[in-house]
Amino acid sequence: MSRAMFRETHTRSIAKAISWRVLGSMATMLLVLVFTRRLALSLAVGGIEFLAKIGLFWLHERAWDRLRFGKREIAPAVVWLTGLSGAGKSTLAVWLGDALRKRGFRVECLDGDAVRAIFPQTGFTRVEREEHLRRIGYLASKLEQNGVFVIASFVSPYESSRQFVRGLCRNFIEVYVSTPLAECERRDVKGLYARARRGEIRNFTGIDDPFEPPSRPELTVDTSALSVSEAGTRILEYLEQRYLRG
Amino acid sequence: MSRAMFRETHTRSIAKAISWRVLGSMATMLLVLVFTRRLALSLAVGGIEFLAKIGLFWLHERAWDRLRFGKREIAPAVVWLTGLSGAGKSTLAVWLGDALRKRGFRVECLDGDAVRAIFPQTGFTRVEREEHLRRIGYLASKLEQNGVFVIASFVSPYESSRQFVRGLCRNFIEVYVSTPLAECERRDVKGLYARARRGEIRNFTGIDDPFEPPSRPELTVDTSALSVSEAGTRILEYLEQRYLRG
Repeated sequence: MSRAMFRETHTRSIAKAISWRVLGSMATMLLVLVFTRRLALSLAVGGIEFLAKIGLFWLHERAWDRLRFGKREIAPAVVWLTGLSGAGKSTLAVWLGDALRKRGFRVECLDGDAVRAIFPQTGFTRVEREEHLRRIGYLASKLEQNGVFVIASFVSPYESSRQFVRGLCRNFIEVYVSTPLAECERRDVKGLYARARRGEIRNFTGIDDPFEPPSRPELTVDTSALSVSEAGTRILEYLEQRYLRG
Repeated sequence: MSRAMFRETHTRSIAKAISWRVLGSMATMLLVLVFTRRLALSLAVGGIEFLAKIGLFWLHERAWDRLRFGKREIAPAVVWLTGLSGAGKSTLAVWLGDALRKRGFRVECLDGDAVRAIFPQTGFTRVEREEHLRRIGYLASKLEQNGVFVIASFVSPYESSRQFVRGLCRNFIEVYVSTPLAECERRDVKGLYARARRGEIRNFTGIDDPFEPPSRPELTVDTSALSVSEAGTRILEYLEQRYLRG
């Protein structure tokens, strides 16, 4: 059972005490007035109650902050976006990350390009890619275990490494970003397809290295047929149905 | 700004409303009794207040659960235990992990043996160790960024890889577990020193591979001179002075 990394500050407890007191003492004054029909008495009781109970409420809040009872942790998930370079994975990851953060969740986006910038020695052979993706999968699973939603956007062309990652995670959602090669090559945002066609880059997925489509992805989205928000909404709806209830 | 992964359940809000009500209504009854000297009246006001305010308090709790105000996140740290095989790193990591969990913190223990069991292909050459430790450091930094205390126990013999990890983390606490080689070899819990001496294992730190002591560790503990709880307490005190205030 993991624990909270938040402590309520004294300021929060005091602010809650005051906001409750305004509500509570108005109710008390009304009650005393209804029962006694004496306005002065109801104001006196309400006034003293107002002050005395702020202190009492504050103590009550501090005591409850020590208790775990009734604090339910939300089980996060690992959303794994797989697909060709230029398929729209990173854009979708950013959209989805924002949407989840807006709902108050803790989110970590792991993106192929960003991680490779930190580990530039990582190559593109099958062995190197497999090792790289297994390490990323391990990272994703540790974040998930600690209450963080993970959105991973990696070409991750091999079924074996994706299966390895699936085995490490609790809630693994494999999203196949199935934008066709022709469309990815037409976009060629980073100019990589042109370079691969000219033979300047080796082991380029879709050109001289295979992409093994997921055999049973949880979701498939094709960004040549769907806008970013349409594709993102599909993933979000999938998450909502399974993980974000309550 | 990261967010909470906890939602307060309705049960918690109702339990708090009732526990507060018992306190609050007793105070109200006492006040009415003191002002009016009429027991029946004070019981009537207190009784109705008791019921009506449970509902009001519950609504008040639900509203506050939506607010982030006054919820202060605790900044965690990465405690990196470095030292020879058999120096006592893993035992210390378990002790420290338990101590931090008892205080309600989220903790992830990353241990060399456990991680290598998941990645058995990882070798012991300088290049392989460096890459391995950099990946672990990246993992540790991502956990730290997401509010998790990390206790990493790895031989991590090279200054360069430890410096790389330091650069990735926010609060990096390098703990040099400086138990001397003679003592580690005398313990030889896993029988690895004997095997390394017989030449059955290559690249064994302390035997045929160097250990570069940290140049400026935050802490140094020698488990041949200190018990586990003494060494653990030193680390805990260091954390308390710097990170666990308030």
